[in-house]
Amino acid sequence: MQKFSVKGNIIFTKDMDKFEIHDDSYLNIENGKIISISKENLFKEVVSYEGNLIIPGFTDTHLHAPQINNIGLGYDEELLSWLEKYTFPEEAKYKNKDFAKKSYSNFVNRLLENGTTSSVIFGTIHKDTTLLLAEMMEEKGLKAYIGKVNMNRNSPDFYIEETEESVEDTEEFIKALASFENIKPIITPRFVPSCTEVLMNKLGDLAEKYDLKIQSHLSESRSEIDWVKDLHPECKNYLDVYVKYSLARNNLNTVMAHCVWLTDEEKEVMKDKEILVSHCPYSNANLTSGIAPVRELISKGINVSLGSDVSGGSEMFMGRIISLAQMLSKMHYVHIDETQKPLTISELFYMATKGGGKFFGNVGSFEEGYSADFLVINDKSIQDINSRTSKERLERFLFTGDKSNISKVYVNGRRIR
Amino acid sequence: MQKFSVKGNIIFTKDMDKFEIHDDSYLNIENGKIISISKENLFKEVVSYEGNLIIPGFTDTHLHAPQINNIGLGYDEELLSWLEKYTFPEEAKYKNKDFAKKSYSNFVNRLLENGTTSSVIFGTIHKDTTLLLAEMMEEKGLKAYIGKVNMNRNSPDFYIEETEESVEDTEEFIKALASFENIKPIITPRFVPSCTEVLMNKLGDLAEKYDLKIQSHLSESRSEIDWVKDLHPECKNYLDVYVKYSLARNNLNTVMAHCVWLTDEEKEVMKDKEILVSHCPYSNANLTSGIAPVRELISKGINVSLGSDVSGGSEMFMGRIISLAQMLSKMHYVHIDETQKPLTISELFYMATKGGGKFFGNVGSFEEGYSADFLVINDKSIQDINSRTSKERLERFLFTGDKSNISKVYVNGRRIR
Repeated sequence: MQKFSVKGNIIFTKDMDKFEIHDDSYLNIENGKIISISKENLFKEVVSYEGNLIIPGFTDTHLHAPQINNIGLGYDEELLSWLEKYTFPEEAKYKNKDFAKKSYSNFVNRLLENGTTSSVIFGTIHKDTTLLLAEMMEEKGLKAYIGKVNMNRNSPDFYIEETEESVEDTEEFIKALASFENIKPIITPRFVPSCTEVLMNKLGDLAEKYDLKIQSHLSESRSEIDWVKDLHPECKNYLDVYVKYSLARNNLNTVMAHCVWLTDEEKEVMKDKEILVSHCPYSNANLTSGIAPVRELISKGINVSLGSDVSGGSEMFMGRIISLAQMLSKMHYVHIDETQKPLTISELFYMATKGGGKFFGNVGSFEEGYSADFLVINDKSIQDINSRTSKERLERFLFTGDKSNISKVYVNGRRIR
Repeated sequence: MQKFSVKGNIIFTKDMDKFEIHDDSYLNIENGKIISISKENLFKEVVSYEGNLIIPGFTDTHLHAPQINNIGLGYDEELLSWLEKYTFPEEAKYKNKDFAKKSYSNFVNRLLENGTTSSVIFGTIHKDTTLLLAEMMEEKGLKAYIGKVNMNRNSPDFYIEETEESVEDTEEFIKALASFENIKPIITPRFVPSCTEVLMNKLGDLAEKYDLKIQSHLSESRSEIDWVKDLHPECKNYLDVYVKYSLARNNLNTVMAHCVWLTDEEKEVMKDKEILVSHCPYSNANLTSGIAPVRELISKGINVSLGSDVSGGSEMFMGRIISLAQMLSKMHYVHIDETQKPLTISELFYMATKGGGKFFGNVGSFEEGYSADFLVINDKSIQDINSRTSKERLERFLFTGDKSNISKVYVNGRRIR
């Protein structure tokens, strides 16, 4: 049985409101799980990263792997025109296995080098190449929920499915992942406008049959919300469409990206059903969607995590996503609602680790029994002449550092980079 | 006389509304100035960067060199408490020459590696070490306006000047820079609350006597504006204080950072006096100041440039500053004023090059007679499997690239990195 102690300046967020900091301490790991943190090493085998920061691996709860090639492109557009011009034509290319292999290889490497050890991922409508992505992720040792995307309406001719085919391919994809260790399938209707009621219900049936989690988009931009309203006059609101057509499973079994413009009624349902919000600041800003009221969501007891939303989002490094989320929360405070205080750095770090990690179980913290998923941060290149606390060093890494400061990546106690 | 042609994919903004793109072309340079762009090389000596992008060097019109050590720190604070906790104690350290030398060396290197060839810089109140900064910048071959900061009221005991000393030191600093080639002195009252009427008037006199430009802060946060109102009931508004006490010189001779909350009357004066705005999105967001109405400012004919505002701003790379400025303009459009369209990428690139370059004369463009200040962008590390236009490559470099993509830096036709 694997047992070892890792030395360094250990920092994490058990709770949202403050960092737990253990300088010059040991993270004791047995069989891939955290046992304890101590001032002396619990185990004989010691791996020393003395002087470096040790933090939980990041969790990214919303990103589109097939959009990796488009990252950084098209931000003179808004959501719906951006989908048509940039996204759909690119995703359609993943029918081609060779194209998919090259692109997904780049994607997997970039996740890893950015220290994103757990992620919740959209593939494309193509079963075979989404499976290829799952294989590449599994081989690398990363944790993920990966979904074959479903779309059978309001989509371009070159990138749409028949209902039966969509359901059958999804079931085959689910079965193909049965033997995977770190990768799990997730039901992935693109969003309401691209799935008929029949398809949504059938996907909901699959989720029940195989006890699967569900991911989709909710209340991203105002034009999209109007569209959903036109499509579903029988539903009270956007979220109600997912509820009515069996795609809103309870108890942290559903993650919805964006949630920028939720009504009070939708917020109540989000809370009651324990649906996880994936807040995607880069995407919401790039695509002119709006600033999600995150302070209000967390005050109401809704679970919030962070997503890069590649390639609506132009950033994969969670540190910068934390930074932008804080900036947008400050702009929300100044310009929209002064009763909603800006998000603090510890709150956002929590969302990027334990908050998103909840979707995976005991992930994203260094409490006993949590997965030993952690990053070693070497911040030499951004240190300055003054001496700084571990908290300041973490803050600086998040706000001005980058992937080059992530020197080692461990998942389940195993070094994968 | 130095004459040569540089080959590459040349891209710049002569006007705000579009990129000028010359693929596989030559930038012809004589004696440090742009002569022309051509499909064949004008001069026998050719430096080929074929396949790379060639863009103007960036201009950063507002940053605090002595805050380089603090970059990325303290963003759980707002402007006035941040000044007290982080900024003033750090700036006070620059009394020590050894501390200044180490810190400024880091600053100068970071400017250079980020491709910022022209900048408008605040030093500290210390004449000697601000002069040291000027020497280091001159030696490196970078262009800058550098100011010894003036503060004689409302400042901590450990970081404040007597009026006479402040004026004398400033005049000595001005004289010491007389022989510099690329570095020029600039009058630098910190901001209204930290300078008495007497000091402001005397600084205005120096500006007239030596025909110098002026830099300061204007209308950054609401609590600061209230403070200025309390201090100067005799003035119509914040800008009027600078006007009344002779610190608002006409004709692109004054640059004011921030301008988030200007009144309509102030906007009129900004336009009439041709005062340059330095828009600092990272700082305005980090310090909870607000989103400057940039679209409105440029529609009114006010000149706008971009500033990093290190260390209120946490980013020195102009690409990311362009990206955040666009994101904030989109949030302004969605949440504040739908009549003010988001800023486009070409508009922001213009502000980061020619818009700020105006303050330096013919800088920031590749038109005939402009300074041959340019960057060679090698974007291999961020290229993807699809073929992309030069415009798309530039866009991706700005939004997701970083300093590692800036492979060469030229100023006045001379390679300095």
